[in-house]
Amino acid sequence: MPHIPLDPELPGIRAAMAFRPETARPLNALVEVLLQGPSTLTRGERELIATYVSSRNCTQFCHNIHGAIAAAHLGGNEDLVRQVKTDFMKAEISSKLKALLHIAGKVQQDGKLVTPADVEAARREGATDIEIHDSVLIAAAFCMYNRYVDGLGTNQPADPAFYRERGKRVAREGYVSVSEEYLAPHSSAAAQ
Amino acid sequence: MPHIPLDPELPGIRAAMAFRPETARPLNALVEVLLQGPSTLTRGERELIATYVSSRNCTQFCHNIHGAIAAAHLGGNEDLVRQVKTDFMKAEISSKLKALLHIAGKVQQDGKLVTPADVEAARREGATDIEIHDSVLIAAAFCMYNRYVDGLGTNQPADPAFYRERGKRVAREGYVSVSEEYLAPHSSAAAQ
Repeated sequence: MPHIPLDPELPGIRAAMAFRPETARPLNALVEVLLQGPSTLTRGERELIATYVSSRNCTQFCHNIHGAIAAAHLGGNEDLVRQVKTDFMKAEISSKLKALLHIAGKVQQDGKLVTPADVEAARREGATDIEIHDSVLIAAAFCMYNRYVDGLGTNQPADPAFYRERGKRVAREGYVSVSEEYLAPHSSAAAQ
Repeated sequence: MPHIPLDPELPGIRAAMAFRPETARPLNALVEVLLQGPSTLTRGERELIATYVSSRNCTQFCHNIHGAIAAAHLGGNEDLVRQVKTDFMKAEISSKLKALLHIAGKVQQDGKLVTPADVEAARREGATDIEIHDSVLIAAAFCMYNRYVDGLGTNQPADPAFYRERGKRVAREGYVSVSEEYLAPHSSAAAQ
């Protein structure tokens, strides 16, 4: 039950964003740049970082939707997403991504826990400065999105089918275009 | 010592933003809407929420700069800012702001800790739905900014005079205009 009057038809962050379009715009722009913008990290890799951090914050809506988007980018491999959430060191992902997830996990707790040795380890696996920067910021940003979704008591569906379907759509169309449906309800995007 | 090659002339988040202007834009737009946009919460009140959350996250750059901006909005009352950081229940602030800081402190830990009773208490003191929303999002957003600043190992000055001067300028000119100096170094803003 949401703490403020949010649209009951909209789940998770979508209800919060529809309530306050002024803040929704930069929130959407940030996630679009970080997770879908030009990057040497694949979209699947970036979604896995977002999923992992959200899972550690136990925010059901975020770790399920980003896990579904990650799976959509990874050929539907939901097992891999589950493995990253439970023990990424044993997942079939690159050593570079493991090193970046290690940094992201520290940022989720407290940015001050990241050490020069953590960063050096990521560099040894081929991570660039921008990849390290973006991993830190993705982790930090999801500490915000997670708290926003939980702190307002938003409705967070339990049905995996909901996330699977939505995940495919966001993977295909991007965050900003999918979210236009409630930020500009009379635009053509609303008819999709 | 920053973990990635950031401009040594720029402190805290400014160095991180100069490194990656693509993400700096939405990060700046968000803080501008939340802390300086139209609101029934004063700028001083909103800066106090940001300061309090940053103080709980022990992010020196953020709690000092936002504390300085808050003080600038509050007639230079640095004692009040210090009191909010150490024990806001004894500070000379409204009961409404105390109730909102209580919610913000919970969001800083975990959004799921916010209860209907916390929100009801804020409402009883006159808080509106948008004020409750914005308090949650300010707290969530500073959990991001703090982790971003700390996670990259940015330089965080210790000199109170630095923060006092910068705080006055941001209070006067706003975030976006002050940050243009490094986001668009050749614009007229750079000449200020």
